[in-house]
Amino acid sequence: MSATTTTLKTAIIKEFGTPCPVIDLDIVERNIARAQKLCDDAGLANRPHIKTHKSPIIAKLQIAAGARGITCQKLGEAKVMADAGITDITIATNLLGAARSGTLAELQSRIGLKVCADNPVSLQYYADAAAQAGRAMDVMIECDTGQKRAGVETPREAIALAEIINANPWLNFAGLLFYPPLDGWPKTQTFFDETTAGLAGLGMKAEIISTGGTPNFVNIGKLNGATEHRAGTCVFNDLMMIDAKVATLDDCAFQIFTSVVSRGGSERGILDAGSKTLTADTGGLDGFGRIVEHPKARIHKLAEEHGFLDLTDCTDKPEIGDIVRVIPNHVCVAVNMVDQLVAVRGNEIVEVIPVAARGMLV
Amino acid sequence: MSATTTTLKTAIIKEFGTPCPVIDLDIVERNIARAQKLCDDAGLANRPHIKTHKSPIIAKLQIAAGARGITCQKLGEAKVMADAGITDITIATNLLGAARSGTLAELQSRIGLKVCADNPVSLQYYADAAAQAGRAMDVMIECDTGQKRAGVETPREAIALAEIINANPWLNFAGLLFYPPLDGWPKTQTFFDETTAGLAGLGMKAEIISTGGTPNFVNIGKLNGATEHRAGTCVFNDLMMIDAKVATLDDCAFQIFTSVVSRGGSERGILDAGSKTLTADTGGLDGFGRIVEHPKARIHKLAEEHGFLDLTDCTDKPEIGDIVRVIPNHVCVAVNMVDQLVAVRGNEIVEVIPVAARGMLV
Repeated sequence: MSATTTTLKTAIIKEFGTPCPVIDLDIVERNIARAQKLCDDAGLANRPHIKTHKSPIIAKLQIAAGARGITCQKLGEAKVMADAGITDITIATNLLGAARSGTLAELQSRIGLKVCADNPVSLQYYADAAAQAGRAMDVMIECDTGQKRAGVETPREAIALAEIINANPWLNFAGLLFYPPLDGWPKTQTFFDETTAGLAGLGMKAEIISTGGTPNFVNIGKLNGATEHRAGTCVFNDLMMIDAKVATLDDCAFQIFTSVVSRGGSERGILDAGSKTLTADTGGLDGFGRIVEHPKARIHKLAEEHGFLDLTDCTDKPEIGDIVRVIPNHVCVAVNMVDQLVAVRGNEIVEVIPVAARGMLV
Repeated sequence: MSATTTTLKTAIIKEFGTPCPVIDLDIVERNIARAQKLCDDAGLANRPHIKTHKSPIIAKLQIAAGARGITCQKLGEAKVMADAGITDITIATNLLGAARSGTLAELQSRIGLKVCADNPVSLQYYADAAAQAGRAMDVMIECDTGQKRAGVETPREAIALAEIINANPWLNFAGLLFYPPLDGWPKTQTFFDETTAGLAGLGMKAEIISTGGTPNFVNIGKLNGATEHRAGTCVFNDLMMIDAKVATLDDCAFQIFTSVVSRGGSERGILDAGSKTLTADTGGLDGFGRIVEHPKARIHKLAEEHGFLDLTDCTDKPEIGDIVRVIPNHVCVAVNMVDQLVAVRGNEIVEVIPVAARGMLV
């Protein structure tokens, strides 16, 4: 957003006030094209994760740029995307708690979902929902190769789940879902190869082999056998992605426009963006975001609607009434705080984009 | 929510799925009555802060119980409350960035707001909005007696701002707003006394003297001259309030019902509530919430839709498919994540309450 000037700030403050979440569509489109090219060059289908933007409008930009379909993290997100006409959707989490509500069956009756599981309990709920919907459900097996979150930890478990899926008329075995740690790709290859061999012995084959993560773009294509990649954050980027060396400041499409509302002392100040705007998620970085105009003004603490500035190292200190732009540490959670994003191109406000899939319970 | 049983969990999972934010209205009403009594007993008006619940329905319960009016932290919150028919509203922050948008003037033309300032720039924007609205605006001066966030730090500055307010036909000097630190009440008394004396010398008087904070209920009434108190969190309570010794587990009205969706090893598990549900705000406490059924199961880390459980110290470990209830560290930010709260009384679902004032930009 290097071309942003006082003109845009004035327009934002007049039309919306601050704090105001702004995305630059020129940067968004460049980011979308780059992710698509990275997937194309690696010979993988692109299945962007919409958890970052939660907007059907932006999901459709990704599909128009070549994405095969989308990835969601919640059932509610998938419902919003389906309502907007998107039909090729993978939900990359165990939907156990959401699957039992009837919403999964309702959605499955409208579009054929791809869901994920790492345990037989989830499979049973998926089968129940599929039976209720009258349409068999595609299930991928989530495999953990080092993140230590959800996912089976051994090829043996993956194969056992595939057999359960295969034996259930309401479930189709669709493939394997990986989110390898940055240094876990060789281990992922071994896991994949052993699982594939085991499945072959049973006459089964994983059609979709999915890898994930924006930071993992540095590794894209390194899993021999992969068929697609899911990345979310790259659509907007943030300080975590800069830290991961997969983006630069110029690639950050999302900024919070915020006002300096108080200067309680020569070395401190207050922004009108706090933990309900930037979120308390540091992403492991220092502070709570980078102020574009004053990179040495450290946002060291947050109250709910206040960001606390330490101006000690800042020679050019912001004044009361100044509008500054903050790039958050973690954009996915910051977007999730608001109902709409103000979309600009350079200095012009062009659109207000609803964050339509946020606030859902399940 | 001690009476909560399997019956309610089954009803929640069938109707809503998980994660599901639930409030027990019996506890909410008890909490509202208690806050009102604490204010009544101290001879103070009660002006609850609605940032915690963001719901006109609950604000009206507070007013029905005796509250004089409400406190908001954002202009958008005030707008939602005004739209619902609430007219006595204090906005307890410098609205500098929001005041410049036109929304402040629009709201001021409908209801007379009480706003806060700690600097002349904000005062000018308030005067502009009031002139645009054609109605003078009540302004309180925010005074900092140790929190080091917004607020003037000396009586001299407070008096100077009061004079500016007094000299502007579009502004009425309405009073002083304090948020004393727990140990800052004697200092606040001194600040108040000096300011009052200075104002008297100029023929001025602060009509409203407001103190704030649920933790400060332990100090309520200790500021001689105070006229009202603003407290937010006490309507629901959370682990921070328990830590502050102003609430017990039985006073916590808000819980996230969440499912154990994965058990990746004997000592770990995954909940379907992550940083987009519980938030990354620890409130200075260990972990990210307390599991009612398994207090020794530590939520030690969050991904966006996943809570990571360390079950090492947990003898009675939760199983895949179990629904557990989590009391968050900081309820105000957790409520802010969702569009609706499921309201129960004991084991019965009675209502779905919109979190109507969340997601606003300003």
